[in-house]
Amino acid sequence: MSTLSATLSSITAGGPDGWDLHRRAMRMIAAGEPVIPLSIGEHDIRTDPAILAAMDAAARGGRTGYAEIAGTPALRAEIAARVQAQSGVVTTPANVIVMPGGQAGLFAAHRAACDPGDVALYVDPYYATYPGTIRAVGAQPRSVIAAAEAGFQPAEDDLRQAAQAGASQGRTRSLLINSPNNPTGALYSRATLEGIARVCREADLWLISDEVYDTQVWEGAHLSPRALPGMAERTLVVGSLSKSHAMTGSRVGWIVGPEAAIAALDALATHTTYGIPGYIQDAALFALQQGAGFEAGIAEPFRRRRAIVERVLARTTSVRAAPMRGAMYAMLDIRATGLSGEAFGRRLLDEERIAVMPGESFGTAGAGHVRVALTVDDARLDEALSRLVALAERLAAPA
Amino acid sequence: MSTLSATLSSITAGGPDGWDLHRRAMRMIAAGEPVIPLSIGEHDIRTDPAILAAMDAAARGGRTGYAEIAGTPALRAEIAARVQAQSGVVTTPANVIVMPGGQAGLFAAHRAACDPGDVALYVDPYYATYPGTIRAVGAQPRSVIAAAEAGFQPAEDDLRQAAQAGASQGRTRSLLINSPNNPTGALYSRATLEGIARVCREADLWLISDEVYDTQVWEGAHLSPRALPGMAERTLVVGSLSKSHAMTGSRVGWIVGPEAAIAALDALATHTTYGIPGYIQDAALFALQQGAGFEAGIAEPFRRRRAIVERVLARTTSVRAAPMRGAMYAMLDIRATGLSGEAFGRRLLDEERIAVMPGESFGTAGAGHVRVALTVDDARLDEALSRLVALAERLAAPA
Ligand SMILES: Cc1ncc(COP(=O)(O)O)c(C=O)c1O
Ligand SMILES: Cc1ncc(COP(=O)(O)O)c(C=O)c1O
Repeated sequence: MSTLSATLSSITAGGPDGWDLHRRAMRMIAAGEPVIPLSIGEHDIRTDPAILAAMDAAARGGRTGYAEIAGTPALRAEIAARVQAQSGVVTTPANVIVMPGGQAGLFAAHRAACDPGDVALYVDPYYATYPGTIRAVGAQPRSVIAAAEAGFQPAEDDLRQAAQAGASQGRTRSLLINSPNNPTGALYSRATLEGIARVCREADLWLISDEVYDTQVWEGAHLSPRALPGMAERTLVVGSLSKSHAMTGSRVGWIVGPEAAIAALDALATHTTYGIPGYIQDAALFALQQGAGFEAGIAEPFRRRRAIVERVLARTTSVRAAPMRGAMYAMLDIRATGLSGEAFGRRLLDEERIAVMPGESFGTAGAGHVRVALTVDDARLDEALSRLVALAERLAAPA
Repeated sequence: MSTLSATLSSITAGGPDGWDLHRRAMRMIAAGEPVIPLSIGEHDIRTDPAILAAMDAAARGGRTGYAEIAGTPALRAEIAARVQAQSGVVTTPANVIVMPGGQAGLFAAHRAACDPGDVALYVDPYYATYPGTIRAVGAQPRSVIAAAEAGFQPAEDDLRQAAQAGASQGRTRSLLINSPNNPTGALYSRATLEGIARVCREADLWLISDEVYDTQVWEGAHLSPRALPGMAERTLVVGSLSKSHAMTGSRVGWIVGPEAAIAALDALATHTTYGIPGYIQDAALFALQQGAGFEAGIAEPFRRRRAIVERVLARTTSVRAAPMRGAMYAMLDIRATGLSGEAFGRRLLDEERIAVMPGESFGTAGAGHVRVALTVDDARLDEALSRLVALAERLAAPA
């Protein structure tokens, strides 16, 4: 075979991807074993039939040709109105480009911010694709630790140091954050976001703000950093219908940013994906038009299950949940067991047939934790958590 | 605004994109003027309702979650079987990755072949996105002329020279070809493809073979260069259902290549698009299962309209059609008028309300030509061509 580009080969050069335990669990399930899967961030419900009906009506109505690459005017306008209502920042259709999912938005936003060799910052613990997405644009990922002890909120000084340290190895061009956060369930406070904004302004960084969990907020309110002073001109917000509307498979999301950035991203889309299906855009428009009540209904099971986590964990001191302020996950501190998240996760799968993600899968700051996705029905979650706690207590008990 | 990356800004740095006349025509149509649009490569039919029904059934059946990123096993197997039957080259699902359209395939294939600064060759006249796609991966586009006088077939020596010339400015890593060809209607002969293969083997280039028009062949047979000796290990074939199944809007295509390249492209997809909707994959599978008869039916109108072009042009010497061996276009030589394709296209739009693409939109080798897309019904095409010929004859007549 001829040689593959170094850029392509680098994507997976970050070592093991942390999904080994999950893959083993999936194989066990496929082999018929009764494993409770708490390892992935996907709803246990399907996309609402009314949304699918809107899609079918659009397709049969003739929406099957090439659609506008940046998104249909109606969908861009609806997204702009939503973002403006949520953030208070003036947002027009020219600030919006439709993307085939939030992941495509993360890639395109980094392509907008970074050239090959540039440094791109991200926060650890992180969503699995982050470092690879940065490498996919030829940039160098550099992580900033958000410690468990700080509620997984990154500290302003650590961010500032990372932005400066980058300078010696290449220009630092961007910072990627995610609030509400996967995997930790953290919601960045106003103080955290103001610190982030200061560092971005000082170091002239693009802020890439992954807000795909913006409808899953359990305590406090979602604040988009694009609304902070001087930030609209340097923030690229990544949004998606995957989590808010249980539409993961439909691959529809967006980027909101300065007009000139959106125009340049339109050219990128022309040369990468050439837009998304018109009938999916019509379905997405219909979905957004269902309003906040619909979205609250999609988020409701996670709110309920979060209460189950709190109830079950109230009984023990061997497992502690990090503050669960948003998103569909609980990050459980199992350091009292003396095991790593990896080792605890392995025993949980082997002995209890429960699949979780080791905290180490998400970087170094998640060590000694496991991430539980709240994506099985309440009764199974309750049972799984009780067995998880029982295992932790057996391990933590003085021998 | 913070600065955009040079890579992103470079995409549109190639000067005017050649679509001005087309955009003006679209504005005229929007304003109610009776313009006959022969400027774009999109079917005048919609996607077949049976395919849309298969999609709806899949979606309602629950295929709305994240699907396999490289494609569902069933779709990859169907594509592999199709490619193997067509080319005679052993092809397994591990040689196939599903992409959100042929354009996404072109981008990913260049990402696989090229690093920033590398030189990527393509043939002029070319499909509009080609140079921008190469710039989108940070590589340098370099064109090789395929002269009208040679039936728009690139010459082996020109390719060899370009591959060597590149070496001084950066490694030359790939050659992008397209047969059946947009915009010229050329079908590369076996001799042309053998010359291409020799150059790729000698210079250790990846051959990126855009075969999205493989079902639209009017004379001779489609030959995939992947089938030539020593080429399967260095060829990335880009395919799509857009043209073969009138599914442009559904954004579904693929890359076929060596297993290791496909595995690396799977990692790229994980970090760029995260796959395509499962219900679209099921619809694509259904579409491919309809077989060759269905595909011939989709191609049939273009075959008929090609005969109309030949009949109308037989009456004149002021306009000559380049050999129309494949694809949904006729490249008309209007040099007898003394005008450029650009100037002739402008007069055709202003005086006859007929929109075509100037040959210059597709590079230098298309100068003095206009491209006519065979995408309006037979009667309108007949009328438009007759008026085009009449204009050319008025212009060509000695004053
Ligand atoms: C933090 C975060 N960002 C982005 C994504 C990507 O979502 P999508 O591409 O489905 O919109 C996910 C999915 O799990 C996620 O957890
Ligand atoms: C030569 C050529 N390649 C690729 C494409 C892209 O097709 P799609 O992305 O719809 O599969 C086109 C579309 O016009 C084309 O003409």
